[in-house]
Amino acid sequence: MNPTPQSQDVLARIAEVIESRKPAAGGDPDKSYVAKLFAKGTDAILKKIGEEATETVMAAKDGDAQKLVYEVADLWFHSIIALAQFGLTPQQVIAELARREGLSGLEEFARRTPAAPAAPTVPTAPEDPR
Amino acid sequence: MNPTPQSQDVLARIAEVIESRKPAAGGDPDKSYVAKLFAKGTDAILKKIGEEATETVMAAKDGDAQKLVYEVADLWFHSIIALAQFGLTPQQVIAELARREGLSGLEEFARRTPAAPAAPTVPTAPEDPR
Amino acid sequence: MNPTPQSQDVLARIAEVIESRKPAAGGDPDKSYVAKLFAKGTDAILKKIGEEATETVMAAKDGDAQKLVYEVADLWFHSIIALAQFGLTPQQVIAELARREGLSGLEEFARRTPAAPAAPTVPTAPEDPR
Amino acid sequence: MNPTPQSQDVLARIAEVIESRKPAAGGDPDKSYVAKLFAKGTDAILKKIGEEATETVMAAKDGDAQKLVYEVADLWFHSIIALAQFGLTPQQVIAELARREGLSGLEEFARRTPAAPAAPTVPTAPEDPR
Repeated sequence: MNPTPQSQDVLARIAEVIESRKPAAGGDPDKSYVAKLFAKGTDAILKKIGEEATETVMAAKDGDAQKLVYEVADLWFHSIIALAQFGLTPQQVIAELARREGLSGLEEFARRTPAAPAAPTVPTAPEDPR
Repeated sequence: MNPTPQSQDVLARIAEVIESRKPAAGGDPDKSYVAKLFAKGTDAILKKIGEEATETVMAAKDGDAQKLVYEVADLWFHSIIALAQFGLTPQQVIAELARREGLSGLEEFARRTPAAPAAPTVPTAPEDPR
Repeated sequence: MNPTPQSQDVLARIAEVIESRKPAAGGDPDKSYVAKLFAKGTDAILKKIGEEATETVMAAKDGDAQKLVYEVADLWFHSIIALAQFGLTPQQVIAELARREGLSGLEEFARRTPAAPAAPTVPTAPEDPR
Repeated sequence: MNPTPQSQDVLARIAEVIESRKPAAGGDPDKSYVAKLFAKGTDAILKKIGEEATETVMAAKDGDAQKLVYEVADLWFHSIIALAQFGLTPQQVIAELARREGLSGLEEFARRTPAAPAAPTVPTAPEDPR
């Protein structure tokens, strides 16, 4: 009936795809934009955060709604890559947001949502080769 | 029966809370941080995007996983406020992400997720008083 | 006799070079990085401001003094391009800094420093074709 | 004849003032904005870089020339504070800019320009207590 429940969680699914682009997971920098970013390393990923934040601000200043949605998507996508670089998942961000808002039940849900399979639980090394 | 809520449900709920903090919805700048930001206007909101993006980069450079999750949550939270300022919702961002990834079924799914009740569909005016 | 040139002289000279790279001044996008940026337009220039600010932050977090000097130079260089895009000069920034610090005589001095020849005095149009 | 030659270099003079606001130089966080920033530490200073870069972008998008000059001044001012935090000076940035542009004589000049008295020569520690 509901064979792939996790795949309905869009951010979790995107994190899985991103995880599969890591060099250690077989991601090919020649074929995948995300694999290329991972190959370049942490600074290249973080630079994109600054870049996409700036583009989000510019789209908003233009009052261009479609572009704003597009740029926020870019910003969130690269945030998930940054999280993945540190073995973290968007579900942890969602759990933090739920916690803050005191969303009854939602926090617990978010914490229960399984992370991407290959993701370790909060490593301290910045450039974990996993 | 009681399907596990997805990330997008949490984001939608947060968007509703944010929407309720708009001045026109009765948000009180003296009591609510979000209402205060809405009262200050678009530039104050966008400034926070730049600020939180910088804090995300710094947390990552520190290799501090917990802080990174916290700062990305801040960044996404303020992104949702920026979206709300333009009558947009995180569901539209999720739909855009699903579209890009070619996530079969997910895009349509995300689009079907109801937006925050008060949210208009893509206005062009930057500071809609709704 | 031959007074030592000041920081503001270097900045003024750089502004002149940048000015000469504008399409209307004969700047060739195929030969000059700055001409190419001008050809791409305001958003491309502003995106670089966000990018270089992020790189400045990362260099500082690395505690890498040489890289920090390099990235601040990048940030200021692209700031001057942004100023030029609006017909403004670094001398106006220097004058503003002198004014704030109440640097006796310096403000007036900075204002007297000749601007780049082609630079108009504070136009309001964002993308002046000059 | 020329009793205060250095004081005509606006950026060098500003760097001196900033240097005098360091806690070790007697800067009082209760009386000086800069002393307060130094007291808060590196991250607080760097956060301002991200913030002022965003405000620069917004001023440019508004096509507001006066605000753009003002925000670039803010951005450069906080860049000089960040440099000072690492024992660096704006003269080193000017020298780097002159070097890149191959400005005949200017590079040498900039390198000869004395740094702010208290500034050490390129320490590696991020938060030097000097």
